[in-house]
Amino acid sequence: MDDNVAVIGVGLGKVGEHWEKSLRDLAIESIWMAFEDSGIDKVDALYVGNMSSGPFVEQEHIGALIADFAGLGPIPAVKVEAACGSGGAAFIEGYMGVKSGMYDYVLVTGVEKMTDVLPSKTTSILANASDRDYEAFHGVSFVALNALVMRRYMHEFKVKREDLSIFPVISHKNAPFSKHAMYRKEISLEAVMNSPIIADPLSLMDCAPICDGAASVILCSEKKAREFTDTPIIVSGVGLATDTLGVHDRKHMTTLSAAVEASKKAYKMAGVTPKDINIAEIHDAFSIMSALSIEDMGFAKKGQGTKMALEGQHYIGGDLPINLYGGLKARGHPVGATGVYQIGELVYSLRGDGRVDAERGLAENIGGSGATVSVCVLERGD
Amino acid sequence: MDDNVAVIGVGLGKVGEHWEKSLRDLAIESIWMAFEDSGIDKVDALYVGNMSSGPFVEQEHIGALIADFAGLGPIPAVKVEAACGSGGAAFIEGYMGVKSGMYDYVLVTGVEKMTDVLPSKTTSILANASDRDYEAFHGVSFVALNALVMRRYMHEFKVKREDLSIFPVISHKNAPFSKHAMYRKEISLEAVMNSPIIADPLSLMDCAPICDGAASVILCSEKKAREFTDTPIIVSGVGLATDTLGVHDRKHMTTLSAAVEASKKAYKMAGVTPKDINIAEIHDAFSIMSALSIEDMGFAKKGQGTKMALEGQHYIGGDLPINLYGGLKARGHPVGATGVYQIGELVYSLRGDGRVDAERGLAENIGGSGATVSVCVLERGD
Repeated sequence: MDDNVAVIGVGLGKVGEHWEKSLRDLAIESIWMAFEDSGIDKVDALYVGNMSSGPFVEQEHIGALIADFAGLGPIPAVKVEAACGSGGAAFIEGYMGVKSGMYDYVLVTGVEKMTDVLPSKTTSILANASDRDYEAFHGVSFVALNALVMRRYMHEFKVKREDLSIFPVISHKNAPFSKHAMYRKEISLEAVMNSPIIADPLSLMDCAPICDGAASVILCSEKKAREFTDTPIIVSGVGLATDTLGVHDRKHMTTLSAAVEASKKAYKMAGVTPKDINIAEIHDAFSIMSALSIEDMGFAKKGQGTKMALEGQHYIGGDLPINLYGGLKARGHPVGATGVYQIGELVYSLRGDGRVDAERGLAENIGGSGATVSVCVLERGD
Repeated sequence: MDDNVAVIGVGLGKVGEHWEKSLRDLAIESIWMAFEDSGIDKVDALYVGNMSSGPFVEQEHIGALIADFAGLGPIPAVKVEAACGSGGAAFIEGYMGVKSGMYDYVLVTGVEKMTDVLPSKTTSILANASDRDYEAFHGVSFVALNALVMRRYMHEFKVKREDLSIFPVISHKNAPFSKHAMYRKEISLEAVMNSPIIADPLSLMDCAPICDGAASVILCSEKKAREFTDTPIIVSGVGLATDTLGVHDRKHMTTLSAAVEASKKAYKMAGVTPKDINIAEIHDAFSIMSALSIEDMGFAKKGQGTKMALEGQHYIGGDLPINLYGGLKARGHPVGATGVYQIGELVYSLRGDGRVDAERGLAENIGGSGATVSVCVLERGD
């Protein structure tokens, strides 16, 4: 209990439309990369973050499946699901597995195979993250829900659409550097503004793409980690919280109260405040979610979530660089895998990739339209 | 870390075909029952055991959904999935939540709503627990997989069909006492033998029914539990293990190696041997699984799994009474909920329900055709 938990291995598979690979192929590829990165070759447990393998590829029981095909059996292996927040939630379970003393080495794999079904079906499957009886039943898609929140935010805080369109530009700015990213190119504000409207006021380029991908990280105690590396990355704080599933049930449509709650927990556990965070991986599934996240994790006052972005503070060199490997928008958003990608990317940045000299960062992973939020604070252990 | 984990509340909803209730209704009903049973009214985290809410009711994200509708937000809430072994796996995550010191009080809810789709679709959804690419793809249903294992077992150990048909009789024997059971009646060996063949040699009454249900239990440290009760039920050992997903990949088709592994872990943690177990909740989804479970958890030699059953030792009064509330066969098998029902039933028996005086028992929950097995040892804390 007294020992810290550290990340000692990262494997981030290329995100894209992988017609030629199955869910298990993707997962195992990332696992091999994480093993190679860590220097170890076995673990005591596997947690799989995944949203919808049942509807997407007609396969449940993927904890055991992946453990089996990765040659890891008979280790305990389960899937953890919290919609698009599955990866972050699985990571926190893995953290607890080590922290509780149950396991010495834990593998956390996030995986999603979204492109094996027709796009119309994808929209329906993603709507399973919202409230089927009170939201999706009325024909409100997941993009539409986010559009409603964005419209309200623009009204409430007198924010223009172009002020929010800056977020995809920021994420894409870092994408050329990101080898595993789906779209490795920069985009202009004009490109976002002029892209087709999907659900007014959200345009195509405000939305993270549908794709396939898998990411893995390996956890152990700091003490054990020091046998492998002089610069382990420590998990100093984790927080997971929930909110109403339906957006209409919230006190304030424009507040992610689960992000408020989860970040408070994570800061408290890490003994830090937002000021101590140098970099952040933000859940930019839709531009509006970036602004709300920045505010609700304490980096800006309510309604001011675009201020730092417009000042250029979220680029490398600014006060709070975000989404250093492209974020959900450019790296891609294979839903249940995203949270694990974020952790891996944060580890890369903290280890030092020649771009930022950051001591501490956080990863924020959102499930649904904000009903689940996890926040993890990681820091250099040197 | 030094403190034991105890169960202080149980709520077992009636199992059946609940056309008039939704997944969330069922879950919340059992949560209220568990709160009432425990004497507390809030918890720090929720783990939901569920296999296939996506395909069955087009709803994912049910951790947050259930926390929301039960009025428990903003607590952390995730779904844990391991096919039909989801309930047991969720229980073990809940156990670790308390053991790690992350949470003081944890609620574990198992829920499955299976009857909202047509039976043909149910068969397909259940096949997602097997290997879609190497088993289900070839048209092998879940029942068929179990039938193949049974046929091999009968051949290998010269066991007759009627020797295995005793297991449903044993489970049904206890069902009239079980208020939450789906089928509250005894059945005869002849009835099992003469019921229609589903997949030779498995007959209808060898198979647990498709149904809806939800069960909840509340966990906390033994120290805290003693503020509520003088007879807390202690979780003294847990084990979770995996095997190949495909039956054809196993070294021995008739050995549940995950049950061997999981039970060894649980016994070791509890500091006991099979001889110290007084009662057991066995995963009798199919008669053959009962025999294999009895063997592979160390209660009988290989090939001798029906011996105690035929001697009457699994009835109340025998050496190892099993499935005291009807087992999967008579209580019903709402897949992802089953593991939590088993824990709740074990708690009832250990608290003392006027039928057995047991000090220690175990619950065995199987996912798929044995690719995931959890074993939990519980004992009286007095």
